[in-house]
Amino acid sequence: MSEACNTMLSEDDLHYLRRACALARHGLGDVSPNPPVGAVLVRGGEIVGEGWHHGAGLAHAEVEALTAAGELARGATAYVSLEPCNHHGRTGPCARALAERGIARVVFGTRDPNARAAGGAEYLRGAGIETFDAQMREAYRLIEAFAVAAVSDRPYVALKMAASVNGAIAARGGMRRWLTGEEARALVRGLRIEHDAVMVGAGTVRVDDPLLTVRPVHARRVPYRRVVVCEREPIPLDRRVLQRDPQVETVILAPRGRAELFRALEPFVRVVYADDEQGRLDLGAALRALKAMGIHSVLCEGGPTLAASLLALGLVDRLHWLIAPLLIVGAGAVSSVAGGEDFDIGGWRFDEVRALGADAYLSGRLRTEDRCSRD
Amino acid sequence: MSEACNTMLSEDDLHYLRRACALARHGLGDVSPNPPVGAVLVRGGEIVGEGWHHGAGLAHAEVEALTAAGELARGATAYVSLEPCNHHGRTGPCARALAERGIARVVFGTRDPNARAAGGAEYLRGAGIETFDAQMREAYRLIEAFAVAAVSDRPYVALKMAASVNGAIAARGGMRRWLTGEEARALVRGLRIEHDAVMVGAGTVRVDDPLLTVRPVHARRVPYRRVVVCEREPIPLDRRVLQRDPQVETVILAPRGRAELFRALEPFVRVVYADDEQGRLDLGAALRALKAMGIHSVLCEGGPTLAASLLALGLVDRLHWLIAPLLIVGAGAVSSVAGGEDFDIGGWRFDEVRALGADAYLSGRLRTEDRCSRD
Repeated sequence: MSEACNTMLSEDDLHYLRRACALARHGLGDVSPNPPVGAVLVRGGEIVGEGWHHGAGLAHAEVEALTAAGELARGATAYVSLEPCNHHGRTGPCARALAERGIARVVFGTRDPNARAAGGAEYLRGAGIETFDAQMREAYRLIEAFAVAAVSDRPYVALKMAASVNGAIAARGGMRRWLTGEEARALVRGLRIEHDAVMVGAGTVRVDDPLLTVRPVHARRVPYRRVVVCEREPIPLDRRVLQRDPQVETVILAPRGRAELFRALEPFVRVVYADDEQGRLDLGAALRALKAMGIHSVLCEGGPTLAASLLALGLVDRLHWLIAPLLIVGAGAVSSVAGGEDFDIGGWRFDEVRALGADAYLSGRLRTEDRCSRD
Repeated sequence: MSEACNTMLSEDDLHYLRRACALARHGLGDVSPNPPVGAVLVRGGEIVGEGWHHGAGLAHAEVEALTAAGELARGATAYVSLEPCNHHGRTGPCARALAERGIARVVFGTRDPNARAAGGAEYLRGAGIETFDAQMREAYRLIEAFAVAAVSDRPYVALKMAASVNGAIAARGGMRRWLTGEEARALVRGLRIEHDAVMVGAGTVRVDDPLLTVRPVHARRVPYRRVVVCEREPIPLDRRVLQRDPQVETVILAPRGRAELFRALEPFVRVVYADDEQGRLDLGAALRALKAMGIHSVLCEGGPTLAASLLALGLVDRLHWLIAPLLIVGAGAVSSVAGGEDFDIGGWRFDEVRALGADAYLSGRLRTEDRCSRD
C-alpha cells in the first residue's frame, strides 16, 4: 500500500514536507516527552498556515497551522512531519481536527510509533481524505528518540565521541583536550539541547572536570540534567558538575552496595541507586531509573569505560562520532572505547557521513529495521 | 594576478575544465612518471577536439586534442587539466604547439610543479594568448603524486587503512578479515592502479598473507610493484607475494646489517638493502631506493607498525582512511597505527569525507599549503 502511495508524491509534496520538518525542529529541546512536529497547510500552491508543537500541554502543530489558516484551511493539503495523532490527550486528536476543518489531503513524514496515539492515518482515510505516509528519513530522525523511548522502559541513548582518526582521545597521561573544532563543538551543544540529559562516567569527571551545561543557556521546558555514572567511587566534591546551577540538575547513579561512600554527595546532588543482585551498579537499571524520572533521551559523552559498557550491553541507539584531523599513536594513547571484555559490535548503519569544519562527522544507528524509503 | 583571472572564468569554463580532468583520468596507471593530463578544445560553444596523455613518450593531451580538431583549432579555447608544458622532452613543448595552431585562449586546472617543464603559462601570455590558472582542486588532485615526487628524492606516499570506527583493525589474535564492503575494496583496487607500487610491512605479510595484485589485471605501462618492508626478519618463502607473477614484481626492503638472513629470498625476489649507519632499516633510505628504481608513488596498506613508522618520520603525504560500521573493543583489539614511541601528528586536512557503501571514507593531506581556490 505505502509503496503505491509513495509514487504519488510530487517534488512539491516533498518540498512542503521538508518545510514541515524544518518547523518541527524549532521544538527540539522544548517538547519532551512529546516528539517535535511541524505542519504546513497548502492551498492552490500557496502556504496558508504553518505551525509547530511548542511543548507538552500546548497546541499540536496541526492545530497551530489550522488556526493560522482560518477559513483557508478548507480544501488544503496538510503536510505534517509526523502522522497526525488520534488520541485524546491533553489536547484533542489532530486527525479529527484536520477532517473537521475540511482538509482535502494529508501527507505525513513518518508513522507515529506510539501505539496510544497512532491510528491517525486510518482515521483520515476512513473520513475519505487522501492520506500518504512519505516514509521520509528526515522526518523519522526528528522523532527517533521519541520512537525508541515510546516502546522501551529506558531512555533513548546516543553515544557521542570525539577522537583522532585512529580512535584515540588523548595521549599518555595528558589532560584530555578539545580535539575537534568549533563546528563540531557547536554540533555537540545542539545535541545536548536535543536530549533530556547528558551522561558521563566518573572517570571523565575526574580527568576532564567538564561543566556539561548547555551554552548558550537554553530555556528547556523539561529541565536538562547532568548524569554521572559512578561504578565504584563517588566523584570528588570540588568537581564542576557539582556546582549548584538553577538551570541544570545533577544526578549521580551509584551502586547501593557502596551507598555509604555516596552519602557525602547527597546534600549536593540527587543520588540514584541502581544495582544488580550483588549490589553492583547495573547500567540497565540505572537507565530505567532515569526514564522513571522523566528522562526520555540521554546523550552519553564518554568516557571510554562507560562507552564500552553501554555498547557491550547493547544500550546505545545512535553513535555520533567526531573525528579530528590528527593521529595519536603509541602505547600511551587513550582509546575512545575501552575496558572490560574483548568484544566487537557490528551492524551499524551510517546515515550521516560528512565533513564538519576541519573534522569529520559520522552518525549511525545499530541494527534497526529501516522503513524509510526516501532520503 | 591569478585571483583577478579567476573571476573571469564562467560556469562553461569550469564545465570544460572538469571534462578535461575526466579525460586525464583515463591515463591513471599508465602515464607514470608523467602526470595524467586531459585537454578539450572548444570553439563556438562546441567541442572540436579532445585528448589525453596515454603514457610517457606518447603525445601530450594538448597535441592529441589539436590533432583531433585539425583546422577547427584556430580561434578555439583550450581547456587543459595541467598547465601546458614549455620544455623539449621526448615531445615538443605544448605551449608552443597551442600558440602555433592559433588557439585564442587557454584555461588550465593547476600549475605545473615541475620546474623543468613549467613556464607554459608565461610563454602563452607572451604570445598574446589569454591564459588562466583556475586553481582547481580536482585538477591538483590528479597530479598530487607527481607534484610531490617532482620536488622530492622519495616517492609520494599514500597510507591506506581500513579500521573500525574506534580505530582497530582486528580483535585479539584473530586473522585480520575484510572489515569493509565491496565499494571500499573497489576504491582500494583503484588506488593500487594509480600508484606505482603497493607497500606493506612484513607483519602484514606474515599475518594476512595478501596477494596485493591489481584486479582486474591492469596493463600498466610502468610495471606495478609489490614492496615488503622487513625491519628485522625476512618473510617466509611460502607467502603469496613471493609467488612468481609476470605482471607484478616483488621488492623486499631489508637492512644490510642482516643481509645474511635475506640471502634465501634473493633467488625469488629483488632484495634492496637500505639502512642507517648502524645497519638498521632506514625508511627514508628505503623510499629513496624505490625512487631510484622508477617508483614515483607508493600506496602503503599497513600494517600498524609500518604505518606508525612512516607517520612518525613525516613520510606520509596522504591518508586514505576507510571506516567500517563496527566497533572492536577491549585490550585485545589490534590498533590501526601502533608501535614505537608515543607521538601525535596533527594538521591533517580532510578534503574528502563521504559514505562509501556501508562504510565511511576519509581522505586528507598533511600540512600542505593549499593553493586551490576552487573545489
